[in-house]
Amino acid sequence: MTLVLGIDIGGTATRAVVTTLGGTRAGSGRAGAANPVTVPAAEVAANLTAALTEALSTVDRAEVGAAVAGAAGASRPAVLRAAFDTLGVRCPLHVVGDAVVAFAAGTDAPAGSVLISGTGAVAAEVREGDLVRTADGLGWLLGDLGSGFWIGRAAATATARALYRGAPPGRLVELVCAEVGERAGDPFVAAVYERPPRELAALAPLVTTAATAGDPLALSIMDEAAGHLCRTLAGVREPGDRSPIVLAGGVLRQCLPLRQAVHDRLTAAWPDAPLRTAGPAEEGAARLAARLLEASSRRRPARS
Amino acid sequence: MTLVLGIDIGGTATRAVVTTLGGTRAGSGRAGAANPVTVPAAEVAANLTAALTEALSTVDRAEVGAAVAGAAGASRPAVLRAAFDTLGVRCPLHVVGDAVVAFAAGTDAPAGSVLISGTGAVAAEVREGDLVRTADGLGWLLGDLGSGFWIGRAAATATARALYRGAPPGRLVELVCAEVGERAGDPFVAAVYERPPRELAALAPLVTTAATAGDPLALSIMDEAAGHLCRTLAGVREPGDRSPIVLAGGVLRQCLPLRQAVHDRLTAAWPDAPLRTAGPAEEGAARLAARLLEASSRRRPARS
Repeated sequence: MTLVLGIDIGGTATRAVVTTLGGTRAGSGRAGAANPVTVPAAEVAANLTAALTEALSTVDRAEVGAAVAGAAGASRPAVLRAAFDTLGVRCPLHVVGDAVVAFAAGTDAPAGSVLISGTGAVAAEVREGDLVRTADGLGWLLGDLGSGFWIGRAAATATARALYRGAPPGRLVELVCAEVGERAGDPFVAAVYERPPRELAALAPLVTTAATAGDPLALSIMDEAAGHLCRTLAGVREPGDRSPIVLAGGVLRQCLPLRQAVHDRLTAAWPDAPLRTAGPAEEGAARLAARLLEASSRRRPARS
Repeated sequence: MTLVLGIDIGGTATRAVVTTLGGTRAGSGRAGAANPVTVPAAEVAANLTAALTEALSTVDRAEVGAAVAGAAGASRPAVLRAAFDTLGVRCPLHVVGDAVVAFAAGTDAPAGSVLISGTGAVAAEVREGDLVRTADGLGWLLGDLGSGFWIGRAAATATARALYRGAPPGRLVELVCAEVGERAGDPFVAAVYERPPRELAALAPLVTTAATAGDPLALSIMDEAAGHLCRTLAGVREPGDRSPIVLAGGVLRQCLPLRQAVHDRLTAAWPDAPLRTAGPAEEGAARLAARLLEASSRRRPARS
């Protein structure tokens, strides 16, 4: 048994990776979403099977000794186990929360905190592969402060206010108006309400673009988002804690102005804590699988 | 011509009143919503006609010399004029914004500010029956800070956080859980997302109840709502302004803890400004109609 399997069951994609115990990639696969909260059951099974088939196509699946899957919210291990049976994968499978996988994707430490901003936002305290406590993660309507949805909605609100004031439009207002497709007062607001609310998350990358170009409105939105995220983290982390903090999620990983603003605040609040940015979640899952395999080898030494 | 007609075209009801020039009620009528933004055109016409028919049933409609209708957002004067023709009402009709009517429902002054919190929230500067400028009024998704929707959503968020923390539930958490129908962590949040977002406004009266009973969580939500509303008003009103401020909308008119919190902040910010609570909007519309009739009588004196 020299290989492990890591799986990330995200809201928009399913990713699988096969690595050696040392983390070297031996195979990888990708398919559509397999989150049972947002996707029909038949599609969940098809996407899981597709991602796994691709990842396993380049390796001897009898060499896979352990698998870990990270999933947001309610997961359905039974569907994943059925896919394993179909593909003839016989190793133990562990399904854990996406925050646990995100933490492992940023550090090998056994305990610490993880702060995630993607489409949603959540902070968690992780200890020995378990979630000890979480903060926010309440979804777009009730929370997710500092998430991609939150940033996109803040951009729409700031644009509506700027249009009503008749202020000279800056870079962000121009980008948002071009994306939403209307250019003045009421029509802009009406156009926003014609879309499904969650689609406001699609405006977040425009805030990144404008903030990178120095637009003051976009920078102030990023600063406010950073403030929310750091307050969320403070809800699961004591002052003076020296354990590592991992920054994860698509928005925090890819939006440099936000990550910088969060970095500055966290460094001020926890000056002695190592700060890490997570790698791909499926690699975090593979790391956890490698740890489990090594632990079980120590408990049951191979006959020599 | 001794009578005037006032009409309030609200989001949930249409109200009409016939008064003397001095404001004494001579007839009134009520029907369902006639706001063209939320109601189909045929229903708009039917509800307008129903409310007007009832209000005019007790008076000689030839005595009605002027009519004013207040409407939120986009209004359709043509539908209202058609209803007038059907009912044989021949007086001039003026359609104005609901903020103008709300201001007139609180004061006879020609100029000042109005702060409205109902299902939505908006502030406006009014001068001689015209809107000079407005702030917020961006709807539930982008703004309406301190509105009934905002208060209801804040109650749901506070309840979800309290359930996750495992804190002893106070009065507000108990009331919200009983209304939403679930009692623990994830199930509560899931139950909230199963409802249409706008229905969160239905939780606002529970916050009023809990705040009146002294619940600290409810009082802090009311205090935050009051802060938002006062900042919205400050967006349309200069420091030192001594013109009257009118508080209007169902939430500000009926929720005493919120009105008290707003009152305290406004008195501190504009100590020399008279502060009034608006009466029924249709009476404000009738007052405006009486002023218009009197002004036109002065311009064209009756032959004697």
